[in-house]
This record gives sequence, C-alpha cells and structure tokens, in this order.
Amino acid sequence: MSDSAFTGRFLGVLGGMGPMAGAAFMVRLTALTDAATEQQHVPAMLWSDPRVPDRPAGYAGTGEDPFPWMLHGVRQMEQMGAGAVAIPCNTAHLWYDRLAAGTSLAVLHIVRSVVADLRRQGIAQGRIGLLGTAATLSSGLYQRELEAQGYECVLLPQEDLLRYCAESIRRVKLNQTEAAFEPAAQCVRLLRRQGVDAVVLGCTELPLALPHGLRPSLDVAVIDSIDALARAAIAWHRGG
Amino acid sequence: MSDSAFTGRFLGVLGGMGPMAGAAFMVRLTALTDAATEQQHVPAMLWSDPRVPDRPAGYAGTGEDPFPWMLHGVRQMEQMGAGAVAIPCNTAHLWYDRLAAGTSLAVLHIVRSVVADLRRQGIAQGRIGLLGTAATLSSGLYQRELEAQGYECVLLPQEDLLRYCAESIRRVKLNQTEAAFEPAAQCVRLLRRQGVDAVVLGCTELPLALPHGLRPSLDVAVIDSIDALARAAIAWHRGG
Repeated sequence: MSDSAFTGRFLGVLGGMGPMAGAAFMVRLTALTDAATEQQHVPAMLWSDPRVPDRPAGYAGTGEDPFPWMLHGVRQMEQMGAGAVAIPCNTAHLWYDRLAAGTSLAVLHIVRSVVADLRRQGIAQGRIGLLGTAATLSSGLYQRELEAQGYECVLLPQEDLLRYCAESIRRVKLNQTEAAFEPAAQCVRLLRRQGVDAVVLGCTELPLALPHGLRPSLDVAVIDSIDALARAAIAWHRGG
Repeated sequence: MSDSAFTGRFLGVLGGMGPMAGAAFMVRLTALTDAATEQQHVPAMLWSDPRVPDRPAGYAGTGEDPFPWMLHGVRQMEQMGAGAVAIPCNTAHLWYDRLAAGTSLAVLHIVRSVVADLRRQGIAQGRIGLLGTAATLSSGLYQRELEAQGYECVLLPQEDLLRYCAESIRRVKLNQTEAAFEPAAQCVRLLRRQGVDAVVLGCTELPLALPHGLRPSLDVAVIDSIDALARAAIAWHRGG
C-alpha cells in the first residue's frame, strides 16, 4: 500500500490552549459533521501542547511569549501533511497575522467563523454581547470584525468581566467545569438585560462552562466560538 | 528559541476509530489529569483519520485491511516526536503485536489498562462481564488477559450482543449518542443479573453511550476502557 493512499484534505488543529478546549473542538467537529459512515468524518490531527505559555499574560507582556510554541505546532502539522489549520483559542488569534505569515497553510479565523455563524443563525444585524478574556476584548479583535459587518458590540463593565467571565474561564482551566456554569450564566444574563440580540462566547473555555443542553434556559441566542470554528473546518473539508 | 525548548514526553494518540472515541479520549485525558495549571497537562498529539477501514470487517476478512492505516498514523506520530502511543479503540488491539513490531515507540495496551483499573477500583478477583464488538469478544483479547489474572469472564449470548451491544455501538458511530444509551444500559442490566462484579466497556464507543453521570443508576461497577487507557497514559507521562 503506497503512501498516496493516505492523501486527502487533513485538518490541523492547534489545540492545548487549553487542552479541554482543543479536545472539545474535536468532539464538536465530529458531532457537527453530517456523515452516514465513520469513514466520512473529517481527517484531522490535533497538536495539543498545553505548555504554551498563557496567552493573556504573553499579550500583556507580563509572561513568556507563546508565539514560538504556536508556530512550532503549526509547522509540525504542516510537515505531517495538514492542509489547513484551525486554532480553538480566541486569544491566540492576537497572533493570527504572524502565524499565518509563518506557514504556507490556510489558517481559519475564529472571529470570521463566529460572524458566519451569526448569519447562519439569522442574526444579520443588531447588538452583540461579547465575552472573552481581557486580552481578547481589550485588543478589539471581535469589535473590528463585527463593526465592519454592521453589528454593534456590547461589553460588560470591567468589574463584571473580572468577577464572572474571568472566573468562569479560570474554573474550566482547573477542570471545575460544573462550578464554571454559574459565573458564565451570570455574564449572559447581564448582557441579556442590556437587550443584546446574541451573546458571543469569545473564549473557547466558555462553551465548556455552558453545556449545550442548559443554553435554552439562558433565553438569548448564544454563539459558540468552538462550534463556529468546527463548522468552518467542516466547510473547508467539504471544499467550501 | 531553539527547538530543544519543545522537548519532553509527548503522548501520541491513534484516534479516528471512531473519531468521537478519539476525541473523548482527549477529553478524559484532560479531565483525569491532576494539574494545578493548564501547562501541567499531558502534551499530546491526536492522529484522527476516520478513514481507517472498519476493524471488525477487516478482522473477519470481509472488508479492507485497516492495518496499513494504523501503522501510517503511528509512524507519523513517531516522526513528530511522540514518546508512546495510546490507541483508544479496543478492536484495533487485534493488530497490537504487528503495530508494536512496526514502531520503536512504546504502545500502551488498552486491555492491560483495564486490568489495572479493575485493581484500582478494588476488584482483585471475581466475575467480569465483557462488552465489545463481536471481533474483540470472539478473539479472546480480554478473556486471555483477565483469566491469566484470575478473573472469570462472563459474556452475553450472541443474540443479545447483536441486538443491544452492537446496536449501541452503531448508534454512537452515527452520532446518535442519546439513542445509544438504552441498548448499552440493557447489556449492563443483563450482565448484572448474572451476578458479575463488574462490567467492562470493552469498546470505546460504549463509554460514550453511557455518560458518567448516568452510571450510578446501573448499580454495578463499570470499567471504562477510555478512562482506563487515559489513566495509563497519564501514568506514562508522569514517568510511571
């Protein structure tokens, strides 16, 4: 059997940031693929090196630079034959341009995937509540893309973000997933009271804090950045 | 930053068989790791090529040989610097000796991991109910190892295995995870009525059919081959 038998579109997934978000991406990639047989699923490789230094600290200049670790992972997957890369970590997208410049592979963009998912859910305009790490939100990563598409962005006050959003992310990273629900749900409630049309879970730990089955009780459209990126990856695999 | 910065024990995971089981392994590897920070989790790479031909059919000689696909995945991970390989698919272990002979890497054995997990749960002897694919069960893969350790194996009649166990596995592979619960639970109940001390979920689709939260209602010790293999991988990473 020649090596040519193993060709075809192979997705590279730069995970580990955190490890549960990368693993959950693989679960959702599988769950969201419409496949009649196991063999029709998306061939993928996940590079899960959780030793990548903390992204918010790296961006703030208070911690080690995570970029060399991310580039190393992307290049390993490039060598192994990946055809595109998905990065299930929103904050990592602060290094998107440098990563895309460091590889010949197409790098899917999580924020553009979220915008596509807003449209898919029929939300073509309106007020969008944003949740994420302080680094993601203060960088304007989401605001630039959403405002360019005509959306209005709504953020919670810093103290609420710190008290609820950052706390929920912290608990997920400590494997305290159930305890992460309440602070994340509180963020969604506070945004809903501000009359938003949707809430973007713009950190890949937040979808883990808010299991799909419990989202209807939040009573507002929730845009899940893991699911949005998985849908973009499936579309890439299908040749879209 | 030199490449030497990225060394350290890296786990290779030969997934894709099926893709949800491989993804779930990554979730459980993370959930079962005792880590105070994200960076302390196990560095891992997952090779998830779901195009690997069906293992039971390949073993029966009625379908394409999956072995070259498995070996290709292991060798890719070897090239990328993996230090050991875990294979979250029980039936794939019918090719364990050939795979281990085809790589210089240590290959963890899922059946030995299950035996270690029986001991960890305090079940040092007794009657063990076995669930798995027809190929896994008819090959004696589990029976040889368990009987050598002094356990007695209990199997359901073929017609129950086909009607409930194979059906549950089939539904998981079709992403019908909720519908997979009842036939898997029925297998466990039938074995419990035969007075077993534990039931081994000896196919990595079965733990997906029986979510951890619902297992206490089954009222018998359940040995999860995904969790057992994840624990073995964590022990390997810790140098055990």
